[in-house]
Amino acid sequence: MFPETFPAYCAGHFIETLQKLEVRNPYNGEVVGKTFLAGPAKLENAITSALNTREPMRLLDSFRRYEALMYIASGIENMKQLFAETICRESAKPIRYALAEVDRSIQTFRVAAEESRRLPGEYLSLDWTPAGAGKEAWVKHFPVGVVAGIAPFNFPLNLAVHKIAPAIAAGCPIILKPSTSTPLSTLLLARIISEAGLPKGAVSILPMDRATGNALVTDSRLSLLSFTGSPVVGWKMKAAAGRKKVVLELGGNAGVIISAIPDIEEALNKCITGAFSYSGQVCIHTQLIYVLKAIFNEFASRFVAKTTVLKTGDPMDPATDISVMIDEENACRVESWVLEAVEGGAEILCGGRRNGGFYEPTVVTNTKPGMNVCCSEIFGPVVVIEPVESIRDAVGQINQGCFGLQAGIFTDSLAEMNYAFEHLEAGGVIVNDVPTFRVDHMPYGGIKNSGLGREGVRYAMFDMLEPKLLVRNKY
Amino acid sequence: MFPETFPAYCAGHFIETLQKLEVRNPYNGEVVGKTFLAGPAKLENAITSALNTREPMRLLDSFRRYEALMYIASGIENMKQLFAETICRESAKPIRYALAEVDRSIQTFRVAAEESRRLPGEYLSLDWTPAGAGKEAWVKHFPVGVVAGIAPFNFPLNLAVHKIAPAIAAGCPIILKPSTSTPLSTLLLARIISEAGLPKGAVSILPMDRATGNALVTDSRLSLLSFTGSPVVGWKMKAAAGRKKVVLELGGNAGVIISAIPDIEEALNKCITGAFSYSGQVCIHTQLIYVLKAIFNEFASRFVAKTTVLKTGDPMDPATDISVMIDEENACRVESWVLEAVEGGAEILCGGRRNGGFYEPTVVTNTKPGMNVCCSEIFGPVVVIEPVESIRDAVGQINQGCFGLQAGIFTDSLAEMNYAFEHLEAGGVIVNDVPTFRVDHMPYGGIKNSGLGREGVRYAMFDMLEPKLLVRNKY
Amino acid sequence: MFPETFPAYCAGHFIETLQKLEVRNPYNGEVVGKTFLAGPAKLENAITSALNTREPMRLLDSFRRYEALMYIASGIENMKQLFAETICRESAKPIRYALAEVDRSIQTFRVAAEESRRLPGEYLSLDWTPAGAGKEAWVKHFPVGVVAGIAPFNFPLNLAVHKIAPAIAAGCPIILKPSTSTPLSTLLLARIISEAGLPKGAVSILPMDRATGNALVTDSRLSLLSFTGSPVVGWKMKAAAGRKKVVLELGGNAGVIISAIPDIEEALNKCITGAFSYSGQVCIHTQLIYVLKAIFNEFASRFVAKTTVLKTGDPMDPATDISVMIDEENACRVESWVLEAVEGGAEILCGGRRNGGFYEPTVVTNTKPGMNVCCSEIFGPVVVIEPVESIRDAVGQINQGCFGLQAGIFTDSLAEMNYAFEHLEAGGVIVNDVPTFRVDHMPYGGIKNSGLGREGVRYAMFDMLEPKLLVRNKY
Amino acid sequence: MFPETFPAYCAGHFIETLQKLEVRNPYNGEVVGKTFLAGPAKLENAITSALNTREPMRLLDSFRRYEALMYIASGIENMKQLFAETICRESAKPIRYALAEVDRSIQTFRVAAEESRRLPGEYLSLDWTPAGAGKEAWVKHFPVGVVAGIAPFNFPLNLAVHKIAPAIAAGCPIILKPSTSTPLSTLLLARIISEAGLPKGAVSILPMDRATGNALVTDSRLSLLSFTGSPVVGWKMKAAAGRKKVVLELGGNAGVIISAIPDIEEALNKCITGAFSYSGQVCIHTQLIYVLKAIFNEFASRFVAKTTVLKTGDPMDPATDISVMIDEENACRVESWVLEAVEGGAEILCGGRRNGGFYEPTVVTNTKPGMNVCCSEIFGPVVVIEPVESIRDAVGQINQGCFGLQAGIFTDSLAEMNYAFEHLEAGGVIVNDVPTFRVDHMPYGGIKNSGLGREGVRYAMFDMLEPKLLVRNKY
Repeated sequence: MFPETFPAYCAGHFIETLQKLEVRNPYNGEVVGKTFLAGPAKLENAITSALNTREPMRLLDSFRRYEALMYIASGIENMKQLFAETICRESAKPIRYALAEVDRSIQTFRVAAEESRRLPGEYLSLDWTPAGAGKEAWVKHFPVGVVAGIAPFNFPLNLAVHKIAPAIAAGCPIILKPSTSTPLSTLLLARIISEAGLPKGAVSILPMDRATGNALVTDSRLSLLSFTGSPVVGWKMKAAAGRKKVVLELGGNAGVIISAIPDIEEALNKCITGAFSYSGQVCIHTQLIYVLKAIFNEFASRFVAKTTVLKTGDPMDPATDISVMIDEENACRVESWVLEAVEGGAEILCGGRRNGGFYEPTVVTNTKPGMNVCCSEIFGPVVVIEPVESIRDAVGQINQGCFGLQAGIFTDSLAEMNYAFEHLEAGGVIVNDVPTFRVDHMPYGGIKNSGLGREGVRYAMFDMLEPKLLVRNKY
Repeated sequence: MFPETFPAYCAGHFIETLQKLEVRNPYNGEVVGKTFLAGPAKLENAITSALNTREPMRLLDSFRRYEALMYIASGIENMKQLFAETICRESAKPIRYALAEVDRSIQTFRVAAEESRRLPGEYLSLDWTPAGAGKEAWVKHFPVGVVAGIAPFNFPLNLAVHKIAPAIAAGCPIILKPSTSTPLSTLLLARIISEAGLPKGAVSILPMDRATGNALVTDSRLSLLSFTGSPVVGWKMKAAAGRKKVVLELGGNAGVIISAIPDIEEALNKCITGAFSYSGQVCIHTQLIYVLKAIFNEFASRFVAKTTVLKTGDPMDPATDISVMIDEENACRVESWVLEAVEGGAEILCGGRRNGGFYEPTVVTNTKPGMNVCCSEIFGPVVVIEPVESIRDAVGQINQGCFGLQAGIFTDSLAEMNYAFEHLEAGGVIVNDVPTFRVDHMPYGGIKNSGLGREGVRYAMFDMLEPKLLVRNKY
Repeated sequence: MFPETFPAYCAGHFIETLQKLEVRNPYNGEVVGKTFLAGPAKLENAITSALNTREPMRLLDSFRRYEALMYIASGIENMKQLFAETICRESAKPIRYALAEVDRSIQTFRVAAEESRRLPGEYLSLDWTPAGAGKEAWVKHFPVGVVAGIAPFNFPLNLAVHKIAPAIAAGCPIILKPSTSTPLSTLLLARIISEAGLPKGAVSILPMDRATGNALVTDSRLSLLSFTGSPVVGWKMKAAAGRKKVVLELGGNAGVIISAIPDIEEALNKCITGAFSYSGQVCIHTQLIYVLKAIFNEFASRFVAKTTVLKTGDPMDPATDISVMIDEENACRVESWVLEAVEGGAEILCGGRRNGGFYEPTVVTNTKPGMNVCCSEIFGPVVVIEPVESIRDAVGQINQGCFGLQAGIFTDSLAEMNYAFEHLEAGGVIVNDVPTFRVDHMPYGGIKNSGLGREGVRYAMFDMLEPKLLVRNKY
Repeated sequence: MFPETFPAYCAGHFIETLQKLEVRNPYNGEVVGKTFLAGPAKLENAITSALNTREPMRLLDSFRRYEALMYIASGIENMKQLFAETICRESAKPIRYALAEVDRSIQTFRVAAEESRRLPGEYLSLDWTPAGAGKEAWVKHFPVGVVAGIAPFNFPLNLAVHKIAPAIAAGCPIILKPSTSTPLSTLLLARIISEAGLPKGAVSILPMDRATGNALVTDSRLSLLSFTGSPVVGWKMKAAAGRKKVVLELGGNAGVIISAIPDIEEALNKCITGAFSYSGQVCIHTQLIYVLKAIFNEFASRFVAKTTVLKTGDPMDPATDISVMIDEENACRVESWVLEAVEGGAEILCGGRRNGGFYEPTVVTNTKPGMNVCCSEIFGPVVVIEPVESIRDAVGQINQGCFGLQAGIFTDSLAEMNYAFEHLEAGGVIVNDVPTFRVDHMPYGGIKNSGLGREGVRYAMFDMLEPKLLVRNKY
């Protein structure tokens, strides 16, 4: 079936434009599919149509929102293999991870369906002073307006779904710009959305070049910008966003702490997955592993042993653990950061070689905090592993970085868990698992340079809703 | 100032009756004060008046409820010493525990004041199916009607306050029957309540004999029975209560588990307090201590050492740790239970002697589960201490009893905490503290034979409120 | 396919017993199906098995509860027509109402699936006083134990489902006794439940005679009794229930108020449905209609006109509005109550005749409050319609009765809505609709003689859950 | 006692600088008091100290936060008259409104005290899919970091308190810049705060010139900017704020709708207060009154009659309704806007003359939507009153403006209330009261150009808190 043409989806219509976009498989360079970039005129169509759809979307009874979202979930489920292959081919994500991503997208829509029935409301007595005597207030939440979503390449389906599904559930029209590297799985989704019974204009999915897409940031008619991507880009958008609300889901250099747990096998396996799934191109990639001195040597050597047996190859092969990175440019960047570290005195325990867009799963130690492999987001299959004196020491190491998305700690000690939770500067602390842990309904997002706001269906919806207060007499 | 006469408080009026009640200090037999038993006619007055006060209480703006409750809190604070002495004299509770009880009563009223502003409400979209299209629901909570409260002797002030304060906050008139052993501190409170600006009929505090008081259980015009006292009495009331709601705060034989923590000093001190404060006449008295085998000997010997230095004497002496029990009858019962245990093979590690109403702080070991000191509520200064093989073993020991109020565990292990919390059959599990821990705003109450429902201001209020649904069109 | 044999469902096994039960169609006396009464031994099996299933049910991950509940919902949907016909034949409920009931049951299971993921939890800081310094509390809710459910004949499927679905969602094993008049649709459901992947022992559905079934009330190993049925029976059960919690969903004589709304057509149609659907054999049957004097004559005459054109006949005919009552005994009771009213001076505006088990849709006026047609639950196709001077007058009329399930008011006046909501003594007030309005996720239940507690999936689950407090140190 | 010197309050120390600031009474030009502008060095002191105080503030047990906040509330209460006079003199706010403001500030601190105990927390089961099997999540909320507050002149005390009190309650250090026109009441408050037992560095109150104060917007070490002031300034700050969160409480041109209510006297009186209290220098000043045609003439003529009898004069005179505006520049602006309207065809029904800083209470009609008196925030004693055909028409008039803070509607119709609530684009809709209604615990804030986020103690606190997720195993 590949290659195929995937028209862009503009306000209920599948469109083609003069700006063709060929999407190639990063692994073998084959064309996966063709699509089209929307220009300013098409984007304007989408915006106008979305603005006109605010009222019908707001008035959609919750059973209709629910039905549409459940319809989409079932639609994905019915084409699960096709979705996974599309993701696999456009992004070089190993097929078993691609399948897992599709499962998560199904779940994200189902959770959104359920949450669409549970829009929040609040009651307040107002008679706390004579000024409010006899009065009470009810708060209901209304859709904020049109949502602009910008999604990244690394979870081309599910991170787009984390914007689309809450928008439908909250009653907001949405215009989504997928990554131009990996737009196809989202456009495949558009085909299901187009038959879900939503008003035209409720959803647009438009691949765009950066200049055109920037209108999503600056256009004052849009009410919310929800961006998932790199920190540098994200923070610039915040300054340029005008009056609209901004949610930023950026990256990090997530760290995990290994305390003196009796059995480290489970921790090792989870760290391997956290470190190397999709070549570390994951916002909550486990980049830093701090191990208590007493068990460092054992942990490190067993970790290296497990790393070296990871299977590399074609992402479509179910046995493949690691394939190429999204492009050679990124592989070169990773290579240069590791070299920089080695020149600064770091030691490569395994890996460290690049071959085109493929970078070996790599373990580095003896680093210094200021090296890029430590303090920047590596977004590649590299993990730094270092011994620490104490939990306190490890927490300090993690906190001195500028990111704060998630962090992990393996421990059976209540006191250590408490210390880590109280002091780790992060959006989430994962106990006895890697920071890479995420399920789709949990609140997810970072502090410090890692972002602003939270996603995770219900939490994303809150940013898409505006409270409105009704004050009235009780009697 | 003692002895003094404390009239009963009937629907806003201080009344005297022909049935005089002399309250004597259990420590020295001196008359602490005189009051009066209300007969059926006075109770009928109180009920009628309470029924008529339902509507004015319901309509009281929350700032008025708040002001009344804060006024009462301040009133107690201004007479703190007098309240403490009254408690001390009528109940033989050592003065420093009596002072702590008064502080807690002040706090209970303040929390109730705050909660009176925060009556719950709820919003629900109803359009989950076409049958509810265009409809929404609001839920508000209304006072349930007249509350009947029955309070015990052991916290004569604060356990009455745990019924009175939430009732005022929720907008319910209340008729409270204090223990005839210790009615004076509650009647002292009545003097403050009478000046708090509440409608007459909002609060009655009536000492009654059991026959008269039984109408609080059976009268069908009352909407809620809130009883704190012994299990046997409580469960009978439930069967006799007719259509009214019933909340039962009964007792237990609370257990605590001591795992292999590095420093047991803090655990020892907390267990001493849990075991012997107010001679164990506390619903969540620490009755059973299960210690991991490895540290049992050390724990037990240090526990005994600390027990034997407890200071006994006049409850009015600030240095006194332990004084007489509420009456000699109870001391005899405790004595007989310990003797029964010894006859069955148990060993007394310290204490074990009775002198009139005074029973020594006593530590017993080598018991069997079916002995009264283990499986019944001892409500006296006796603690059973036993070694266990494992946390699992200890949890099993506790669960095989018929009570389930609170339990404690001292541990730094997450896995042990999880196991205990998941499996202990109790209303609350206290980690690194004794089951005797209670602060006044926390939900508090037992399962199994220990009761039904929860107190703790907000939670008590929930039982005093009835949800009412308003369904209406959105458009 | 009818008649068919429906074995009883005992702890995962379909069983037959020596006590056969033939279920006949009330309309034509034909045998609809055969089933079996469980005796004490089978009930004991079910109880023992349920007790043993408490732990596996509690430990079921929420995705498993969700899957089971969604499986059951889909199973019903796949056999919707068969379920509706079974209901129709066993209860003489007109087929279109039976189909609506099946739809509601599907929805009830789906809502329960969603709620199974949303078990409540709560966070509390405990450091409000120095006694709680450094401490915090988490509250989680655990399954209460085995639930005993007793369901009525009038919604043989959905009112059983309102006990079964929340029990599964909450993690409680349940033993359900259906009405012996209408057990078949519930036993049809058992076939789907048996394949839903739940532990054996999670659900039993046992037709029983009253003597055997009474053990569900009295057995002390069961933790909750949830009864839907008649007030007299319900309140007796409460007294006999021992320590277990009790939820009672009883009936009422629901009233609706018609204020001076400009267009009464919609009100008329809703009142017709509220008054006569399933011959008024509905807990929230619209029994009393109070109309403002100014529009009484018009309202009454148009109401009568609409009543007289209701189509009576075979419940299996899709055009049938009204068929026979559940049995002739009830039809006779209704007849006698109407006669009593007429003898007391009431006037029949239409209807009033009985033919076997069929009772005509009947409108009565000029009644007195003490007549059975007014103050008792008629549970038949009879409505009383009376003029009132004012909303206040109408509210007073409704409140003087002893029931309080739901009430309705048609009005566009905020002041009237407020007055009605503040003063109507009922579990729910329905604005611009009849008291007969119910969707399955809304809190539903009565006060006064109408019951205790609330159903409506989430609300039913709350009674099936017990809060457990975890107190621990923050640092 | 006036004039007096009020030192600035820098991280626990009262400081004087070389930049003196004389504050004059706008009514008579007398010096009310002297204070000092902080320069960049002092601001740096405050910031550094605040940063160092984050940890001690976070760790403050809630009973300490509560005590500090209640201490401050009582401190203000004890000096209520002095606070009111200070406000009155520095801002020319009539003394009875100044007294009301002080009462509100006391209440704001008390509410914050209560909320400091109720920091939110959340529980989530994570086992919705196999990926989360056995896991659960707890969310706790932590202080966001240092808060920068910028307060306006019009409620010099209470709008500063709406930033200071939630910051203390949430555990955030705060640096507050009061208006340089009216800094004295806030500095008077600093004296009480300095004795409240908070860590040095918790609160700084620094008058600054705009250039210096701008660092509060741009400094990247601050975590939240909370600004109350003019729209133009506010929206620029958002763009310049870098990574920090921004809350903007800006103004509006609030409208009220008068439907066909039987008795307009109450509506008239409330509108008079909404329109002219503190000369309309209120964010939710009632600027636009839309009256249904049928009652327009009566309403307008009675409104004018009530306007013309308002008493003008010295703000210190308890009888004064209206005094001078904050400065002559603003009075001139108002004058020019009214002249612009008249030139465009509008008619002055009363008022319209300026005398120095005093502008008469003025009623204008026959305006056009684009006139400044209609579409800009007049922030002066001017009200526009216009007839409308219908509620729908009135809602349309209000929505076409660019602001959306609060709106009001007087009606007894449910349908009209629903329509207004569903369609009015505003943060709050006040039924049967003016949009000027506010009590201090209610959520308050605007949409469109009126702002971003909500204040109202608890709601302000939410922006000062960051959720942190703890994921852990249940077993």
